[in-house]
Amino acid sequence: MKIAVVLSGCGVFDGAEIHESVLTLWSLEQNQVDYDCLAPNVQQAHVINHMTGEEMAESRNALVEAARISRGAIIDVAKASADDYDALIFPGGFGAAKNLSDFAFKGADCCTNPDVLAFAQKFASANKPMGFICIAPAMIPKIFNETIDLTIGSDKETAKAINQMGGHHVECPVTEMVVDEQHKVVSTPAYMLAENISQAASGISKLVKEVIRLAK
Amino acid sequence: MKIAVVLSGCGVFDGAEIHESVLTLWSLEQNQVDYDCLAPNVQQAHVINHMTGEEMAESRNALVEAARISRGAIIDVAKASADDYDALIFPGGFGAAKNLSDFAFKGADCCTNPDVLAFAQKFASANKPMGFICIAPAMIPKIFNETIDLTIGSDKETAKAINQMGGHHVECPVTEMVVDEQHKVVSTPAYMLAENISQAASGISKLVKEVIRLAK
Repeated sequence: MKIAVVLSGCGVFDGAEIHESVLTLWSLEQNQVDYDCLAPNVQQAHVINHMTGEEMAESRNALVEAARISRGAIIDVAKASADDYDALIFPGGFGAAKNLSDFAFKGADCCTNPDVLAFAQKFASANKPMGFICIAPAMIPKIFNETIDLTIGSDKETAKAINQMGGHHVECPVTEMVVDEQHKVVSTPAYMLAENISQAASGISKLVKEVIRLAK
Repeated sequence: MKIAVVLSGCGVFDGAEIHESVLTLWSLEQNQVDYDCLAPNVQQAHVINHMTGEEMAESRNALVEAARISRGAIIDVAKASADDYDALIFPGGFGAAKNLSDFAFKGADCCTNPDVLAFAQKFASANKPMGFICIAPAMIPKIFNETIDLTIGSDKETAKAINQMGGHHVECPVTEMVVDEQHKVVSTPAYMLAENISQAASGISKLVKEVIRLAK
């Protein structure tokens, strides 16, 4: 079994959330499942100074920065084939809502990066399982034509925007996950709610196990 | 108990190794020990494109980049007081040998960043425990006037340079650690040898537990 992990840069405020990404990869390893890290070859929406929260006068590429998390081995999602993978997992971080989509800027009017969208839709049409962590579930209504059960935790405004796009938000504590068994879609709040690494790890570990179970 | 974790940027090739850093923080959490993340306020020696391995025409600050790993909360090591902490841990990554010291460039002739050196020497003189991961043990001979048992795994050239500086290198498998009980110095090879996250996690988890034990 091999699972694709799609990252969105490197750092919670403008890219992939680092703890969530590492916990996802480690969980896959712990379950003896092989993985590749992928990312779209796009400039990040912006670069945030993570110490101050302010935007920096810089430009960084989501694929190049994501390679920091994977220690170099990274695949351009546009050049990957969904046929090579049994499942797909999206860690969170603002990068999922800024670089993979523009949900952070446009809410319910957002678009998803076309390469990421095409890749994910191949898993959907093949009924292969997908896991979405933190804010990444905001992409689910764009990937599926049907209404999918999903969670981003309990933030009412975010949930409302997701429901407007055609999703079905279900409140969920940080240590748990929501499973849409029919569509094989799993989501967990992680740092939408987590106050420490252990809380995020609890939900992510369950999500990874569930995605693997659904892929069998 | 509170432990200082000194990072050196964000990314194995020019900063702190991300997996090692996250595993260190998570291990501290798992042992119910509080921590702060710190880094020196210096420009990185360089910026490496982690996908290609090539140097980029950019300049990044080790403190600002380290805040990506800590999700924002980061302290300038020059402004921190060793009195506030019971122990100190250095995760690895080339940043430890490029930004905290210049061991990667100068080998046995290296210097250590003066703020990092002064901070670490306060732990040494107070006989407070310190943990060094991956290549970070190369700083140990500069911190202590005495010969300390340490490991960077099994790389003969690196071990030779460390011994030239006055260290005492002991070969060690990735899942284990070397403890200098008298000086309360713990080291583990992590990604000097690790082929995956689980191997690194095994040694780091032991190191964190041992540093906590020595701090009690």
